[in-house]
Amino acid sequence: MNTQIPAVPATSRAEPIDKFVAVIPAGGVGTRLWPLSRAAAPKFLHDLTGSGSTLLRATYDRLAPLTGNGIVLVTGEAHRDAVCRQLPELADGDLVLENEPKDSGAAIGLAAAILYMRDPETIMGSFAADQVISPVEKFQDAVREAIHTAATGKIVTIGIKPTHAATGFGYIRTGEPLAVAGAPSAHAVVKFVEKPSQDVAEQYLASGEYNWNAGMFVAPVELLLRHLKANTPDLYAGLMEIAEAWDTPERVAVKNRVWPTLPKIAIDYAVAEPAADAGDVAVIPADFSWDDVGDFAAIARLNNAREVDDVTVIGEGARVFTEDSTGIVVTDTKRVIALIGIEDVVVVDTPDALLVTTRAHAQLVKRAVDGLKAKGDTDVL
Amino acid sequence: MNTQIPAVPATSRAEPIDKFVAVIPAGGVGTRLWPLSRAAAPKFLHDLTGSGSTLLRATYDRLAPLTGNGIVLVTGEAHRDAVCRQLPELADGDLVLENEPKDSGAAIGLAAAILYMRDPETIMGSFAADQVISPVEKFQDAVREAIHTAATGKIVTIGIKPTHAATGFGYIRTGEPLAVAGAPSAHAVVKFVEKPSQDVAEQYLASGEYNWNAGMFVAPVELLLRHLKANTPDLYAGLMEIAEAWDTPERVAVKNRVWPTLPKIAIDYAVAEPAADAGDVAVIPADFSWDDVGDFAAIARLNNAREVDDVTVIGEGARVFTEDSTGIVVTDTKRVIALIGIEDVVVVDTPDALLVTTRAHAQLVKRAVDGLKAKGDTDVL
Repeated sequence: MNTQIPAVPATSRAEPIDKFVAVIPAGGVGTRLWPLSRAAAPKFLHDLTGSGSTLLRATYDRLAPLTGNGIVLVTGEAHRDAVCRQLPELADGDLVLENEPKDSGAAIGLAAAILYMRDPETIMGSFAADQVISPVEKFQDAVREAIHTAATGKIVTIGIKPTHAATGFGYIRTGEPLAVAGAPSAHAVVKFVEKPSQDVAEQYLASGEYNWNAGMFVAPVELLLRHLKANTPDLYAGLMEIAEAWDTPERVAVKNRVWPTLPKIAIDYAVAEPAADAGDVAVIPADFSWDDVGDFAAIARLNNAREVDDVTVIGEGARVFTEDSTGIVVTDTKRVIALIGIEDVVVVDTPDALLVTTRAHAQLVKRAVDGLKAKGDTDVL
Repeated sequence: MNTQIPAVPATSRAEPIDKFVAVIPAGGVGTRLWPLSRAAAPKFLHDLTGSGSTLLRATYDRLAPLTGNGIVLVTGEAHRDAVCRQLPELADGDLVLENEPKDSGAAIGLAAAILYMRDPETIMGSFAADQVISPVEKFQDAVREAIHTAATGKIVTIGIKPTHAATGFGYIRTGEPLAVAGAPSAHAVVKFVEKPSQDVAEQYLASGEYNWNAGMFVAPVELLLRHLKANTPDLYAGLMEIAEAWDTPERVAVKNRVWPTLPKIAIDYAVAEPAADAGDVAVIPADFSWDDVGDFAAIARLNNAREVDDVTVIGEGARVFTEDSTGIVVTDTKRVIALIGIEDVVVVDTPDALLVTTRAHAQLVKRAVDGLKAKGDTDVL
């Protein structure tokens, strides 16, 4: 479904969408999905929805209709081969490989700087590689509105209308409507707020003034870099040095020299929050369904997996036998798994590691990873 | 510790103990311990107590001081190599390999017939290969009393003083004391009774007249064969035919021809119960600790395993991480196993099959095996 794009301001020399390039930061191990997701095989490289596509590939396919092939991917060097297998159409210059993790400020900032060097009028959007969104058309409509709003000189977040009083996400307090052609949903942002307590989350939900912060935003690269320069001048300088060399033979040499020196800071602190304080941030509240696949309960929710009795089974070739049991089995082995008389269990079976927990404790899986790290069992992390 | 053997009746030409040969029927898959115990690796081939010995080896070592090396082992042909590795001292003629399972009447009856052919005055004892007994000295004292009692012309069971109203065992109703030199504990047996209901088991326990039937008995081979002949003449005839050929070059040929034709019947029905009705059965009530390792709860009970928080971990090289969890982990892999926030769980991890259940459901593991059989997943059974 294509939505007709409304008229844009007369000052624009081209449709804003023609200036749009998507950036996909593909980082994060997805620790709460251990042992399925781990350093060597992070969340975005898995098909967690049973769709036949990895989360990364699905993210790319969701954005490609908006950008042509104008997509830049930022990921760790370790994932180069896996990412290239997933996205064979990705041009060499559009794959940004981090020498080491430097947080989202450096990852997204470098993409912005590279795009700025290519065309300072670029409007970029940043979309994490490991989220599940549907329907795609509603998402694309929201991004189009965000692009139109960004073209008026805003950093535009896409806010998700909350369906429950979640405590696992940050929130965006929404202000007055903005009058933007092509973006009837655009609103000002009053401020970003951190993950709330349960009480506060319920107040947010009841007020109707808050949206979930899904970490998606659209912005003119020039505006993003201006805030980055103001707040983290060292980071800005390093990123611009790499970006100047990017589309030259010096790319790798300069990146290898400069990247390790960059400060670690989240894009939220480097750009989004100061920009919000400066009145430069807008929001497109969107009501597509959105999931960050934060734990195994989410995987069960997202999958139209086959049910064996009352157990959701995820895994190709799974051989699961259950009796008087409820819960989830996620397996990437061909082992026989038998559950007997066990309620609400979460079993995650991989060749070298096994997790047994409950849906209620699924959010605590990170602790196992921390505990194994402390014990030195890093081979399975 | 050696117990001095009291004087025997003047009619005996030798100490009864000198005529004693132990028979170990090593059969049964131990289905309730699946997937650890299975057809290819039954219960008796595992070290289920963390002692460093398999149950089979421990059974042999418990009997050897009573018999010298007078021990006959009966097992399935599939287990020949594993058994020979466990018991390298076993003579070729003392290893009886069943061509196919024919129940305990044929297994124990053939051992009796072979021993009868070698010496008709032999007193044999039959002791399953997969039980855990301690202290060994009390067991050996009870067997010595049983041998003396058997020498008076009795089939002598060793009854276990019940510690609770178990419904998983048959019981022996004990009668009047017998006056047997060298066997002060010997009593007549009124009858054998089947596994009782909970109510009945509690009555048995309260009465003080009942002992658990652990399936251990000592008997003159001549008397055993006489009852076998009276009750199951076909079985008797077939067994005697094999036994006549046993210590000749015809052993294998005759066994291969006759064994498949033998009727299937438990030794209880073929010998023990009719003998009890005939007044030929006695009992030595014994108060050593006895466990048939019937389920994973028993394994946890029997092991001085290392505790990881409140989880009992059994398995060499186990790599287990737990948090807010209780239960048992049995593993013969080197996989990392993480338990988080799960109560009273039983996890059994093998290279090709995984069981997750609870202590309360441990007795139902057999159902998983039946279910997998029905599904055709026989490769892991």
